[in-house]
Amino acid sequence: MSLLNKKSVCVITGASRGIGEGLAIQFAKCIAQDSVLILLARSVPDLEVVQTKVLALPECKKSNVKVIIKRFDQGSTNKEDFESLFSSIFKENNIFVSEFQQGIMIHNAGTLDETKFCKNLHYISKTGQFFQINLTGMITLNAIFLQEFSKLSKVVVNMSSLAAVMPIKSWGLYCTVKSGRDMFFKILAIEDPSIRVLNYAPGPVKTDMMNIVQTQSEDTEIQETYQKLNKEEKLLTAEMTCSKFMEILELNKFESGVHIDYYDEY
Amino acid sequence: MSLLNKKSVCVITGASRGIGEGLAIQFAKCIAQDSVLILLARSVPDLEVVQTKVLALPECKKSNVKVIIKRFDQGSTNKEDFESLFSSIFKENNIFVSEFQQGIMIHNAGTLDETKFCKNLHYISKTGQFFQINLTGMITLNAIFLQEFSKLSKVVVNMSSLAAVMPIKSWGLYCTVKSGRDMFFKILAIEDPSIRVLNYAPGPVKTDMMNIVQTQSEDTEIQETYQKLNKEEKLLTAEMTCSKFMEILELNKFESGVHIDYYDEY
Repeated sequence: MSLLNKKSVCVITGASRGIGEGLAIQFAKCIAQDSVLILLARSVPDLEVVQTKVLALPECKKSNVKVIIKRFDQGSTNKEDFESLFSSIFKENNIFVSEFQQGIMIHNAGTLDETKFCKNLHYISKTGQFFQINLTGMITLNAIFLQEFSKLSKVVVNMSSLAAVMPIKSWGLYCTVKSGRDMFFKILAIEDPSIRVLNYAPGPVKTDMMNIVQTQSEDTEIQETYQKLNKEEKLLTAEMTCSKFMEILELNKFESGVHIDYYDEY
Repeated sequence: MSLLNKKSVCVITGASRGIGEGLAIQFAKCIAQDSVLILLARSVPDLEVVQTKVLALPECKKSNVKVIIKRFDQGSTNKEDFESLFSSIFKENNIFVSEFQQGIMIHNAGTLDETKFCKNLHYISKTGQFFQINLTGMITLNAIFLQEFSKLSKVVVNMSSLAAVMPIKSWGLYCTVKSGRDMFFKILAIEDPSIRVLNYAPGPVKTDMMNIVQTQSEDTEIQETYQKLNKEEKLLTAEMTCSKFMEILELNKFESGVHIDYYDEY
């Protein structure tokens, strides 16, 4: 049975641009009547642009999907920012979780950061900050989500990457994070079989991150590989990968915790 | 050709106990004449005990292996602690790297920490500290090692775990780290084929960490599994796994970057 038919509260991190924006649009189009989208990101002005775009969709108006935006920095080291996040959103927007059937958490926020060779990763504070955003913050937010939505059925998605399963030169930190996150969500899947858990690798999508890949990766072969994909117009759009992702949730046949790539059969 | 025949500087982190101590003993027995062991850990008194034990070995006396101990906290956030580590050791001990043929870095230091279910990992500062020690500090130390030993041939070993390849309930953080580290060293291997890189999973070894596993893992089945191994005397000793590890270095037939478990054929 589709995971999109239930009246849901759907949380998307990094929702101010790129794939996060694409996800917000797709969920607004596909999710059940009277659902709520909670869009999180660091930049409120960017979130406002996405919110306006989403609310203007005819499907969104028709299904009466509510779109809430909230500033959230996953790299914060302040536990209050995490612990009070959902309760403050619920209070400010007069939402009662018990009125919903399902909670969906999409861990999309992430950074690429230092695309350097392993031998050049001696910047301890930058490396620490990278793991704070991409691992510590994400794991903490996930725990808070599971607690706040404990009484609903739940779907948890990790926006994964080819980098989770393939070592890529000069992406030491990124691959480490993506591999670790895949493992983390495999564990969530076996710890609680009632939660539907998915590691989705969106493929090479035309985003701001993809610009960094093409210009800053310390390995020039990697730069050239992605420049070529770009030149030959083989990079995906956010819409393409997000549509495919919604089909996977619609079909709902994946094994919980599995890694599915855009290019995989599913 | 064996990796143990060259006159080496061999650095072992977490060398004050458990597998780290076992490695110090084995290297002192097997490494080439006039090599130097640098043993790092947080506790100097514990390091002194290991140093005394190692220096008392007849093989160590015979091969004139020097054993240096140095306090080092891999969880430090102070970049100076990392950047000055090797240069201060070299200076204090009148060592000139150019007089050696090989540098060996054994990333053995590590913590198990919060053995909780994913839903209970909401302690942001504890989680952050865990990644600081096990990822950030290790990656930074590794970069400093590669730079300081740039002119020698190099061997880099990650003390891995079954947890790097198998999701284990209530070990969310540990598995995330171990999986990420394996990936990191696979990348090092492809970035620099001149470095011999190994991810070695030592099997279930009777250490302080194994006591935590048996008493604190939030999943009681996991506790019981390891209690049973302990009761049936199926846990390995540090000596057993370290001997096997030395055989792998001696044989030196592994593909660089590969994950080898104690129980694997190699």
